[in-house]
Amino acid sequence: MRKVVLQLAVSLDGFIEGPGGEFDWCFTDDDYGMTDFFKRIDAIFIGRKSYELTLSMGGSAPPGFPALKEYVFSNSLRRVEGDRILVNGNLVEVVNNIKNQPGKDIWLYGGAALTSSLINMNLVDEMALAVHPILLGAGKPLFENLPGRVSLQLSSAQTYPSGLVMLAYKFLT
Amino acid sequence: MRKVVLQLAVSLDGFIEGPGGEFDWCFTDDDYGMTDFFKRIDAIFIGRKSYELTLSMGGSAPPGFPALKEYVFSNSLRRVEGDRILVNGNLVEVVNNIKNQPGKDIWLYGGAALTSSLINMNLVDEMALAVHPILLGAGKPLFENLPGRVSLQLSSAQTYPSGLVMLAYKFLT
Repeated sequence: MRKVVLQLAVSLDGFIEGPGGEFDWCFTDDDYGMTDFFKRIDAIFIGRKSYELTLSMGGSAPPGFPALKEYVFSNSLRRVEGDRILVNGNLVEVVNNIKNQPGKDIWLYGGAALTSSLINMNLVDEMALAVHPILLGAGKPLFENLPGRVSLQLSSAQTYPSGLVMLAYKFLT
Repeated sequence: MRKVVLQLAVSLDGFIEGPGGEFDWCFTDDDYGMTDFFKRIDAIFIGRKSYELTLSMGGSAPPGFPALKEYVFSNSLRRVEGDRILVNGNLVEVVNNIKNQPGKDIWLYGGAALTSSLINMNLVDEMALAVHPILLGAGKPLFENLPGRVSLQLSSAQTYPSGLVMLAYKFLT
């Protein structure tokens, strides 16, 4: 079965954006394993807000991104641009259906609301956090409204010369 | 000069206590480097709330703790129990004075308010976070009211079989 993998950059104090939405603190000087990561995925899960944000920035993937089948999660949108696929309704059923289709793994891109929803439904398999050596003090937290504890199993911890540490976990169900 | 070292356990989503003050999620199956850490310190900085909490739990150090000179930070207390030392007034002056005294390094024990104050005044030298493989979803965050970004330099990242990762940083000033 295809795996849903949350992979994103986070400050040491657990924020994915600064208080004004900044992500200029994210290192771009190294690949940080993304080339390998892109080889294992062929689809992306993205929430409505993140989708609208990418549209407002031009709607096309950043340089270096592979061609990905994009699933946009929203109960309010009626349609999505291009060849994206709109996802709503019973998420457990729909996501498990996608996971059971042939294909590579799926990148859970965010945002926090979608991420928390899918974690709550035990639909996320792995998580890799690129922990940056900075405290932001405030901003957007990694998760929103997790209803309780979630136990994880460490898969690997990789250190980079910049001080970034990539922590990879499996979700325990 | 003696170093002030913040060392504490944190969940992967950046909480030091659960929403009800729980710390039952902290691993106790291994030493996690604490024996070595205790060898390098001979004093502890503790905020008023944490001091009162330790008093309410009996007031003596947990088993395995070394004998530490205890500095209690409070502007409201008039006296502290036993041979503890009450600290108030101009923190930059007082803390630098303590750091310039002969002795080993100093454990900044917390809580969050004292920690954030000392970080804001550039009085903290190092930080080691025992990152536990769990999401708490809610609770007491690692820091309170940092006024802005704080840049760090990764010193080491040590992985334990339990999945705990000890991340050690130096504060960049």
